[in-house]
Amino acid sequence: MSLTVVGTMAFDEIETPFGKSGKIIGGSATYIAWAASNFVQPINQVSVVGEDFPKAEMDALSAKGVALDGVQIKEGEKSFYWSGKYHMDMNTRDSLVTDLNVLADFQPVIPETYQGSEFLILGNLTPQVQMSVLDQLKERPRLIVMDTMNFWMEVALEDLLKVLKRVDVLMVNDGEARQLSGEYSLVKAARKILEMGPKYLIIKKGEHGALLFCDNHVFFAPAMPLDEVYDPTGAGDTFAGGFIGHLARTKDISFENMKTAIIVGSAMASFCVEKFGTERIRQVTKGEIAARIEQFVQLVNFDIDLV
Amino acid sequence: MSLTVVGTMAFDEIETPFGKSGKIIGGSATYIAWAASNFVQPINQVSVVGEDFPKAEMDALSAKGVALDGVQIKEGEKSFYWSGKYHMDMNTRDSLVTDLNVLADFQPVIPETYQGSEFLILGNLTPQVQMSVLDQLKERPRLIVMDTMNFWMEVALEDLLKVLKRVDVLMVNDGEARQLSGEYSLVKAARKILEMGPKYLIIKKGEHGALLFCDNHVFFAPAMPLDEVYDPTGAGDTFAGGFIGHLARTKDISFENMKTAIIVGSAMASFCVEKFGTERIRQVTKGEIAARIEQFVQLVNFDIDLV
Repeated sequence: MSLTVVGTMAFDEIETPFGKSGKIIGGSATYIAWAASNFVQPINQVSVVGEDFPKAEMDALSAKGVALDGVQIKEGEKSFYWSGKYHMDMNTRDSLVTDLNVLADFQPVIPETYQGSEFLILGNLTPQVQMSVLDQLKERPRLIVMDTMNFWMEVALEDLLKVLKRVDVLMVNDGEARQLSGEYSLVKAARKILEMGPKYLIIKKGEHGALLFCDNHVFFAPAMPLDEVYDPTGAGDTFAGGFIGHLARTKDISFENMKTAIIVGSAMASFCVEKFGTERIRQVTKGEIAARIEQFVQLVNFDIDLV
Repeated sequence: MSLTVVGTMAFDEIETPFGKSGKIIGGSATYIAWAASNFVQPINQVSVVGEDFPKAEMDALSAKGVALDGVQIKEGEKSFYWSGKYHMDMNTRDSLVTDLNVLADFQPVIPETYQGSEFLILGNLTPQVQMSVLDQLKERPRLIVMDTMNFWMEVALEDLLKVLKRVDVLMVNDGEARQLSGEYSLVKAARKILEMGPKYLIIKKGEHGALLFCDNHVFFAPAMPLDEVYDPTGAGDTFAGGFIGHLARTKDISFENMKTAIIVGSAMASFCVEKFGTERIRQVTKGEIAARIEQFVQLVNFDIDLV
């Protein structure tokens, strides 16, 4: 039940209405690995960092069953750095600094030990890097999940559309689904995007939950109503990690099990936003996860014996 | 299983990105009655109209089991008139004209035949009118549901808070919940509002669904993802009508049954937005309603047998 995770490992500096994080660990692959490692080990990590990236973080990930053979450490270079500030509503943010550093010329290399991985998640990265990973795999994974963002739709749409044809599940947020499809209605957007290649589409709506589309089926999972969203950074990647982690653990890629995976992802994301960065998800216990999933059951369950 | 509905019966003129409605029938009590009459009859309607209000509409409501003894017809006066225009996202709108007309000095009169009604819903109206209705009831209904809006929080907060102390269920939208409580987090807002009197709080989030709060329990129902929202006018009142209609039919006011009632309300609202005004909800059949509710079950149901 091996899982390969491709994405960034980076530094973030975040400001929310609740405070400033200082320079902390971030990156899509970091969040995905921390979330997924609660469900499946080992995780085959593919990423790139500079020599400034803390050994302590590498050790912590190793201890969680994350293999780092595919993480390049570039001597004399700096890790990817992003800083941003959230607005009061926590739904919008301004990027203050984006220093690509090692990410600028990242050429992923899939170690021989990662070959044959059954599950693959391509975190948000340039489509060319995502494609390079697919090209290096000798055997197609059973399930390929891909995340992307509006930026790539603007600067690398052609490459993005090529990758889309080779993946099973696409994850985007509502704005990105609208941008990619040119449709305002998410139902219409989903129909168009499912014609672009992926069999499944997940539309993340942040505090408003997530939708899963496949053929004419649709499933909705709410976000857990929380007293406070402290920092939304990484919530989408944490959701992705919980989603693929559950699928890799159960080895069941049916639509029915994807519904459950979305609930697991939503539960993981609800932890992520409770503290800055990865702070909460690196502490979360199996017991807490099970209890939170039970809260989701309570949140949406209803009896129906009508008419 | 009698139900009393208090609210406006009016004319609306609506413009959406899809077209113009012309002058059509609207009003909170109209939508509530059309929706609720699919579940419970008779409905005791309390409202006021001018002599311009069409007899055909009165006859249509009568045929659906809506008693009109409590609907005052003011000779020589005009019915309440509202016109508005929706923005492209359908979540915001501008009011173009609001002519109170007969509503300006509306003094509701509860007919003797309405006394003893077990269920009461106070549609959005000035709190003083809502209070007057409560004062005229010889026996407290088993369940009192109240809708209101931001406008009354601004111009009649003191009266509004008095009514709040006398009702069981308050329905507001997310912006109104925030305004009434002074809290941005809906969980915190709910906690504060439940201290103001009502035992249950329903927060309507339009296309993002609805939340039901009671003590420390919370239930969430999504809105049905639709190809197109044609006209959102009256969706909240239609939701309210489905909600109270289900409760009045089943005579069960437990939290568990309120969850089901919220799904019923959401199903009715999903029909409402498919066409202008009341057009869709006056045609909807019991079979269509049952099928839509089954779609809600499919939309949110998932298996969980984890960890």
